[in-house]
This record gives sequence, structure tokens and C-alpha cells, in this order.
Amino acid sequence: MKFNIAENLAELRARSPLVHNITNFVVMNYTANALLAVGASPVMAHAVEEVEDMVAIAGALVVNIGTLSPLWVEGMKKAMLAAAKLGKPIVLDPVGAGATPYRNQVLSELLATAAPTLIRGNGSEILALAGVNIKTKGVDSTASSIDSIQAARLLSDKYGCVVSVSGATDVIVSGEKVAYVENGVPLMTRVTGMGCSASAIAGAFSAVQPDAFEAAVSAAALMGVCGEKAFEKAKLPGSFQIAFLDALAEVTPEVLERLAIIK
Amino acid sequence: MKFNIAENLAELRARSPLVHNITNFVVMNYTANALLAVGASPVMAHAVEEVEDMVAIAGALVVNIGTLSPLWVEGMKKAMLAAAKLGKPIVLDPVGAGATPYRNQVLSELLATAAPTLIRGNGSEILALAGVNIKTKGVDSTASSIDSIQAARLLSDKYGCVVSVSGATDVIVSGEKVAYVENGVPLMTRVTGMGCSASAIAGAFSAVQPDAFEAAVSAAALMGVCGEKAFEKAKLPGSFQIAFLDALAEVTPEVLERLAIIK
Amino acid sequence: MKFNIAENLAELRARSPLVHNITNFVVMNYTANALLAVGASPVMAHAVEEVEDMVAIAGALVVNIGTLSPLWVEGMKKAMLAAAKLGKPIVLDPVGAGATPYRNQVLSELLATAAPTLIRGNGSEILALAGVNIKTKGVDSTASSIDSIQAARLLSDKYGCVVSVSGATDVIVSGEKVAYVENGVPLMTRVTGMGCSASAIAGAFSAVQPDAFEAAVSAAALMGVCGEKAFEKAKLPGSFQIAFLDALAEVTPEVLERLAIIK
Repeated sequence: MKFNIAENLAELRARSPLVHNITNFVVMNYTANALLAVGASPVMAHAVEEVEDMVAIAGALVVNIGTLSPLWVEGMKKAMLAAAKLGKPIVLDPVGAGATPYRNQVLSELLATAAPTLIRGNGSEILALAGVNIKTKGVDSTASSIDSIQAARLLSDKYGCVVSVSGATDVIVSGEKVAYVENGVPLMTRVTGMGCSASAIAGAFSAVQPDAFEAAVSAAALMGVCGEKAFEKAKLPGSFQIAFLDALAEVTPEVLERLAIIK
Repeated sequence: MKFNIAENLAELRARSPLVHNITNFVVMNYTANALLAVGASPVMAHAVEEVEDMVAIAGALVVNIGTLSPLWVEGMKKAMLAAAKLGKPIVLDPVGAGATPYRNQVLSELLATAAPTLIRGNGSEILALAGVNIKTKGVDSTASSIDSIQAARLLSDKYGCVVSVSGATDVIVSGEKVAYVENGVPLMTRVTGMGCSASAIAGAFSAVQPDAFEAAVSAAALMGVCGEKAFEKAKLPGSFQIAFLDALAEVTPEVLERLAIIK
Repeated sequence: MKFNIAENLAELRARSPLVHNITNFVVMNYTANALLAVGASPVMAHAVEEVEDMVAIAGALVVNIGTLSPLWVEGMKKAMLAAAKLGKPIVLDPVGAGATPYRNQVLSELLATAAPTLIRGNGSEILALAGVNIKTKGVDSTASSIDSIQAARLLSDKYGCVVSVSGATDVIVSGEKVAYVENGVPLMTRVTGMGCSASAIAGAFSAVQPDAFEAAVSAAALMGVCGEKAFEKAKLPGSFQIAFLDALAEVTPEVLERLAIIK
């Protein structure tokens, strides 16, 4: 398959889309910095009193349930409805799906509220979301992305959306289409917020690239390539997380295209 | 104009004032680390059940509406009332003013609750707060600080407070007085929480320097000079945010005074 | 006294326990990264709707009241009750105890809900928790750990738990037993979340080492040794906080044992 990931990154930087995040407390700072580093403009807003207005000026909405609670879920629903009505892309990150019944219930409600443009999660989360009964361990994955392809396709068909599964190989599914992104390094699993940043960056790409499959592949490739670039400079998780932000800012469209391994 | 910024920094470090922050989720960690790095003592507390007691032991209150919601706004009001009653300086950071009607309404309510000692925001926020109808983009500025001087003066007169507008040139207004701080680097706009840290550090200065104009100028100069020092070590946003914290801790009063460009 | 801190660290890494944190907004990101760096698996979840289910799959519960509010306190209580019922270790970090009446009241309620396995705080917090009337300054300590031994013993007896007091010397008390950990560097007080990370890491150790005294000593030694290792690389707070995460990942059980100074 051929993807215009270099152009997509150039376009993202040229337009610097506003990405509206309703995300978890753990990763808010890192996600905002990742979006700024790559060239997008982040805003975080969760109150039911303002999410519709914020979505209206944003290029994409990213909903992440990492530290959910009822009031926040209300904000997520209202924002998703508004985004759907306005035709703005919605990225859903089902953090910890399967870990507790409450997370599963909230995810059902969110998916019933508005179909996302993209669901991005790890293998365990995608399996749990597809109704496969797996034993999860909090928010870390116990399943590989490859083992989740069937589940991803099921979700893609059910919601008419793209599904991106992070792992040693990132798998992006859209109906019958499947793309594999082979970039990245294992150290990325030792820094919190890498998956959440992948979702936020997918939101940024989807704000400038209407083809959600292409946007999701571009985001996965960028994350993986920047992980590799960061690993050249830092082999330990603290300095790696910083080097990763540097890489997001430093990587050129040409380098991204040259290093991306997409099948 | 002559400002005793070296003395103010020395005093801040000698007294290590407790700065009570009611701020947003995105920047809490970075703001706390910025305050610790410069030599102040941060505390974050938002519950209506305790804000009055926390203000009572603090040297200054910093209110930042970045990720606002009704319960938090209640805490902000209660804290501002308590601070006003006790004569403690209040710094208000109107993050995203103009982005949504809810933010504008909350800002009106906060300003009606107690007049701040200092309002610190970017150009877009200051224009929006002054009632100028501008098109904002989330929390990033679309207007220059220079274009906001008129609006800043209007706010300064209306609330009897100092107004500090961040930008390529920082502009600090107090009635008829205007100071311009020419320090800083563009990379500061690529790290989240720089403006919020500027507000928090202005709170720390105002806790030890009763002249709010002088405190605001000192904070702006310190931010700008530390941005320049950090940029000597780091040209990319991840490592820059870390180098900036280092610079806050390392800069001496003498270096601050020597490098500050204030007009 | 003899502690198997090398074995405990090796066991922690081998089993990578899930640590359920209900903690404050300021430190969530850093705490999660500290747990990941050392080899544990963090999850943050505070909603009453799911804390019982999350505790059920976790190896330990860490409750930290840094930015408390009533709804969060409800979640803490429900989680503590569930952990107690399931026999899972509970670490309580009484951040800012003594700073406001509300914090004191909440701490009384939490301690009446379920006895923690370990209380970890700074000198001021332990004194305040024991009912000694001290003048605190927000969340920073104004009392030494050594001056708090009597109070720590009182708490240990009252709740049948271990009490770990951080300071220049870390003091760990369990009934009549007292251990002193002499590692660490003063720069650790200039980075926010160091104490909170100490509590979270104590939770990780207690998930794999049933002897809470031994778990607490191991955590204190690991924190102190990693502080020293980080200080070899970084003398300023920004880069120190990153070097500290690197040290948590890099330190081997053998190095930990060799450098730990426990009396």
C-alpha cells in the first residue's frame, strides 16, 4: 500500500490543527507536549458547559477514558455528539478496556453515542472492546496486536471506523484493509502516555487528512519512527521520554517517509 | 524604568514563599517543579472544603482556569474571596479566554468575586477579557502582546490591577505605566505550561514584593532570561522544557539582572 | 538488621505487580513513570464506580491525598475497604497533613475506614497525623524525620502498621523496630512527586514482599540510592528528575544492595 505520510506530516505542520482532548490526568501534560512538538495545537477541556463550543473550533476530538468518572463521561458524550454533528473526526482511546465492568459499560455508552472515526488501543483493549473475554492487567496489554486483528476487523465493521492496534507491530484495520507498521522500540512501553500520545497525534493527522485509514497509518509510523530516533539518543525511560518529544519536533517529512516500514 | 529584579529574586529564594495554586491538570506538575526550581514552595489545593485554610498559610494565590469545571470554579471563588480579605496577592491566568462562552462567563464571575492583583495572559486572552471580539484558537494566542496594550490598560483601570501580556515582547501594564521585557525565545511556545509557570512565578514574586508591577516585571524577566539560558543548551522542545527548569534553579540574581532587557 | 533488598527488587521486576494508585493530579505522570521505570505496572483509577474492581486485580493500593476533594475521598474509602477485605497491602501517603483542617479530617476518616499496611510521609505529616500540633507549610516538611520517631511509633502502635518517614535520613518504624536509611541527596526535595513516588514504589514492593517493614525499607533504600545515582549525572532539578527515572530503570539488585546504607 502507498501512503502519503510525508505530505500528511507537512500538512499537519502547515495547518497546526487545534486538537480537542478529553483525556486522563496521567498523560495530559505529555500529550499536550507531544502535540506541540509535532506541530499541532492542543487544548484540554472536559466540562459539559463548554465541550460543544470547544469542539466547534477544533479540527478533531480525542476521547481517552484513562481516569474516567461520571461527570467526565458526560462531557465526553456531549463532545462526541457535537463532533459527529459537525462532521469532525473523533478518536477514541479505550484505556483499560476490560479491566473493570465500569470501563466496559462506559465504552458501550460512548460507542452508542457516536461512532468514532478511529479507535486506537493496545491488543488487550481491542479484544475487550470486541467482547472477547480476556484477562487484562490494568492498562498494560497482555495480548499482541497481531492476535487482535480479528477483533479489530469486527469493531471496524460494527462502527464503520478505522481501528489501530498498537504493539510490537502496529496493525491498522479498515474493513478489509490492513496495514502493518513495523517501527518502534520496546522501551516505548516503559513510558506512560505513549499510547495516549499516539491517539492524540492520530487526532492531529485526522484533522488534516480526511482519509482516517491514512491518518491512522501516518500517526503510527510517526510514533514508531520517533521512538527509533529517540532510542538512538536515550536507552533509559526518563531520558527516552524527553528524546521522544525532541524527535517529534525534529523529524522531517522526508526522514519519516524514509524510515517508515509499512506493509 | 528601574526594577530591583536581582533583589527580588534573592528575596524570593531567601523566603521561599508558599504559593497556593488552583490550576489546570495539564500543567500542575510542571508548575510545581518550576516553583520548586526557582526556590518557592508550591501547594495545589482546589476543594471548597480547604481553599480558605490553604490561602491563609500561603504568601500568594494563583488561579488558572485552563481545565475549568463548576466545582473547581467554586473553589477558585472561595479562595479569591479569602485572599482578598486577608490582603494576599491574587494572580489570575485567564487560559483560553474567548475560546468558549463558558470561559468568558466564568472569568466575569471570578473578576466580580475579587479583583486580582495581577492578570497574566497572552495577547488573545487579554483582548478577549477586555471584551474585544477576537477569533481565538483554543489556548494559543493569535494576537501579539503589543496589539493588546490598549486592552491591557483597560483591564488595569477597570480592576485596579497590573496586567502582564506574554509574547515575543512581554508587556506589563499598570495604569499609565508600561514596561517591556524583551527576553525569551520562540521555542517557549512549543512547551505547554510556560505561560502557566509565568503566572505561578509571578505569584511567588508578588508574595515577597508588595509592588505588583515590580513583581510582574521580575517574573517576566526571569522567565525570558531562563528561556534564553535553556536555549543555549537545548534547541528542541523536550530537552528545552527540562533545561528551562534547570535554568530557573541555576540563574543567579546577578545573571538575571545582567541579561534582563527591560524598557 | 538484615534486609533482602536485592532479592526484593529482583522479585518486583520478575513479577511486575499492578499497583493501583488513587493519587494527586500533580504527581500522577511522574509516579506512573517511576513505577514503569522500576519495573512495576501502574494504574490510576479513582471513581467509586470502579475502584473495587481495580483493587481486585491489583497487587497493592496506594492512596495519596495531595489534591483531595469529597468525591475522590469516597473512592479512596471504597478502595481501602475492598483492599482490606481482600488482604491487599494499602499504602497511605498523608500529603499536607496538618496544613488544613479538611486534610486532617479526611485522614481521620480514611484511617477509620481501614488500617493501612504502611503510612509514608515527611516529618511534618507524620507529626500532624499523630496529633502533634505543628505549624506546617503546605506540603513541604518543617520537621526532621528523626524528630518524628516518637510520633511514628505512636501511629505504628495505633494502627498496627509500618510508618516510613522520609527525610535526610529515612526512618522506618514498626512497633519497637526502627530502621534508618542513610541514602539520598538534598536535591530530591526540589523535585515534586519524590515523596509520592516513594509511596508508590513502597506499594510495588509490598505487592511482592509480604513483610511490610522489609518492603518499606527496600523502597526507601531504592529511592535514596537512585537519588545518589541520578545526582552523579545531574545537579539541577529538571535534569535530575529525568536522571532519577533513568536510575530507577538502570539500578541492578546488586548495585542497590552495595550502595544501600541501612542501620
